[in-house]
Amino acid sequence: MAVGNLDMPVMHPVQGVRIGITEAAIRYKNRRDLTLFEIAEGATVSAVFTQNSYCAAPVLLCRDHLARATPRYLVINTGNANAGTGSVGMDNAVATCRALAALMGVPEARVLPFSTGVIGEHLPVDRLAAALPAALARLDANAWADAAAGIMTTDTRPKGASEQVVVGGMTVTVTGISKGAGMIRPNMATMLGYVATDAAVAQPVLDELLKGAVNQSFNRITIDGDTSTNDSCVLMASGAAGNAVITSADSADYAVLEGAVQRVFARLAQLIVRDGEGATKFMTVQVEEGASTDECCDVAYCIAHSPLVKTAFFASDPNWGRIVAAIGNAGLAALDVSRVRVYLNAVCIVDNGGRAPAYTEEQGAAVMQQEEITIRVCLGRGSARDTVYTCDFSYDYVKINADYRS
Amino acid sequence: MAVGNLDMPVMHPVQGVRIGITEAAIRYKNRRDLTLFEIAEGATVSAVFTQNSYCAAPVLLCRDHLARATPRYLVINTGNANAGTGSVGMDNAVATCRALAALMGVPEARVLPFSTGVIGEHLPVDRLAAALPAALARLDANAWADAAAGIMTTDTRPKGASEQVVVGGMTVTVTGISKGAGMIRPNMATMLGYVATDAAVAQPVLDELLKGAVNQSFNRITIDGDTSTNDSCVLMASGAAGNAVITSADSADYAVLEGAVQRVFARLAQLIVRDGEGATKFMTVQVEEGASTDECCDVAYCIAHSPLVKTAFFASDPNWGRIVAAIGNAGLAALDVSRVRVYLNAVCIVDNGGRAPAYTEEQGAAVMQQEEITIRVCLGRGSARDTVYTCDFSYDYVKINADYRS
Repeated sequence: MAVGNLDMPVMHPVQGVRIGITEAAIRYKNRRDLTLFEIAEGATVSAVFTQNSYCAAPVLLCRDHLARATPRYLVINTGNANAGTGSVGMDNAVATCRALAALMGVPEARVLPFSTGVIGEHLPVDRLAAALPAALARLDANAWADAAAGIMTTDTRPKGASEQVVVGGMTVTVTGISKGAGMIRPNMATMLGYVATDAAVAQPVLDELLKGAVNQSFNRITIDGDTSTNDSCVLMASGAAGNAVITSADSADYAVLEGAVQRVFARLAQLIVRDGEGATKFMTVQVEEGASTDECCDVAYCIAHSPLVKTAFFASDPNWGRIVAAIGNAGLAALDVSRVRVYLNAVCIVDNGGRAPAYTEEQGAAVMQQEEITIRVCLGRGSARDTVYTCDFSYDYVKINADYRS
Repeated sequence: MAVGNLDMPVMHPVQGVRIGITEAAIRYKNRRDLTLFEIAEGATVSAVFTQNSYCAAPVLLCRDHLARATPRYLVINTGNANAGTGSVGMDNAVATCRALAALMGVPEARVLPFSTGVIGEHLPVDRLAAALPAALARLDANAWADAAAGIMTTDTRPKGASEQVVVGGMTVTVTGISKGAGMIRPNMATMLGYVATDAAVAQPVLDELLKGAVNQSFNRITIDGDTSTNDSCVLMASGAAGNAVITSADSADYAVLEGAVQRVFARLAQLIVRDGEGATKFMTVQVEEGASTDECCDVAYCIAHSPLVKTAFFASDPNWGRIVAAIGNAGLAALDVSRVRVYLNAVCIVDNGGRAPAYTEEQGAAVMQQEEITIRVCLGRGSARDTVYTCDFSYDYVKINADYRS
């Protein structure tokens, strides 16, 4: 029940990045569940991870490895999150990196492990290691669309975005994939996102580029408010495009690349919401006229997380009372509700603390029939704004999450 | 689908408090939707209300009236929340009080109005006022069970609790009712709760008694995390029992009364969860060994609000990975997950950051078959504890909230 157009676009290969996918029978047989990225020597790589205290062993190991070396390989499995697995889980994450490092003759710290799937079961590291040669044999720069399929769990559709721009006179590609459909309220990263560019970007500038792009994309979506133990997002810059290395975020080259990276990240993040578990509607929650972006975010998330708002949207019911109740729950100090206005798309539904005088149920019902709806809230107390993306809450969300594991 | 025994107990009348119920056709015909409380002259009355910024007109008016006078009458309607109704809503709340005050010859400020139901529609104050004489004609000290039915909205069962204790040599009664089944995460009060005692209690002591009882009852339950615009809870003390007025919270009399009041409040709060919209399981989330009660509460609410935990319980699936992920989302500084233990009833499922060595899926599945389950989390970082009550998340929650209003 994905919402809107989720078709895979043309996925431009990124020189300096090759991808190999295979079946490792991590949880199920006959399923592509192991994906490798090989990153050329000389690339820069930046990553962000979940803020969940119970973060998974591979997340802990990624942080450690990134502090010690520049990655050459990413190894990603689905079917098992290797989270809540204690010291055995860490041993298994280390063994995964060690196996790939031995095959390729690189230090262990140059391999980053990523896992997604069921929490609390031990990773079958022997099966994973046994499948590595097959994945390596298939390394290919043109495998992005296959990789998008290879990292899926409860996703119904593979998710990709790709763009080309001219940076310093050279054509530069930005291509990425993401996955995730439940346990989605990313906090500094998403479930899994991998974006590569062939632009040459210095490490501190790449870190800044990633942080900015993630904050306006994966950190602005929610499906069920649950932050995963495994959220990880990686941005790779191979430098193969031959542009002059971007060493400052104040340059014109940076601005062009940043635009492309932000658009790719935004698309990848919104694809996750469009394919949210059980989603039938894609909702943009846009909060304006706040005293700060933080309070705009607080209000947007209160609306986006409210089960009552989400079930009303599932029912196509313009039950705006639930929206104002959610606004009231954001804990804003001295909120003057008489200044608050709420719009569904272009229709003003709330004004002056109550139903807008010109509003009719028919207007609201007409908006609600649409698949994509913008809830716009004007707080009337400043000029800050922020936007969060979410989906509705349906029978199928309950079904998917009551059936998962069975 | 209420969970456990919700039978109405013997509801002891409270001398000095009479109740009248009638039909006012607020939203539907042939439904008891108007309830009056008459409180004897000389009683003390204390009340707490929602912290939602978008609080309803009757909540605003109650606060104003309580600052000016001791209440003689409470007037409660279902079917319409009179929230999100702007200045017209306030006019209607005032008109409600004025109509009853005129009939009974008391100042308007001695009437408190309460409304519950759909948000954003105007209260039909003419129909409400026209029904007041019928409700007054039925005033009766023995109408508590009827009142519990009269204040229901999406509740499937009326909710009452009653107890008698000896205070200062006199038999004292504590009797109360509550309602609410969705939009439930009370913040200083619940949807609606009315408790009366015939004990004589000085006003500041009654305020303290109410605050303490609410904090451990209505402020420790959640169904969907949405705090209503209309939450109100009232404690009345008529003094008719003839005990020496309780003027200090340090007295033995206070301790006895406090015990009875706390038990009645706890029962009324838990009844709301047992009758939670679509509930099939009653979950006690008990967090221990915390550095503070605040952090215990944060962890308990993260678990109790997680749609993934709640759908797993609906499915009777001991998916403890979702529980540890929820613990990890509480934002506790420097949480050492290797010290965390998690129990389902008596079964230890998580120890040392992972699955407990002796745990089997069969043990977890056996607990999950039960209707009442305690999730006990030991944080291993202190001696504070707190408990929150919640229910699972079922198809019927979505159905009820997608159909409401239609």
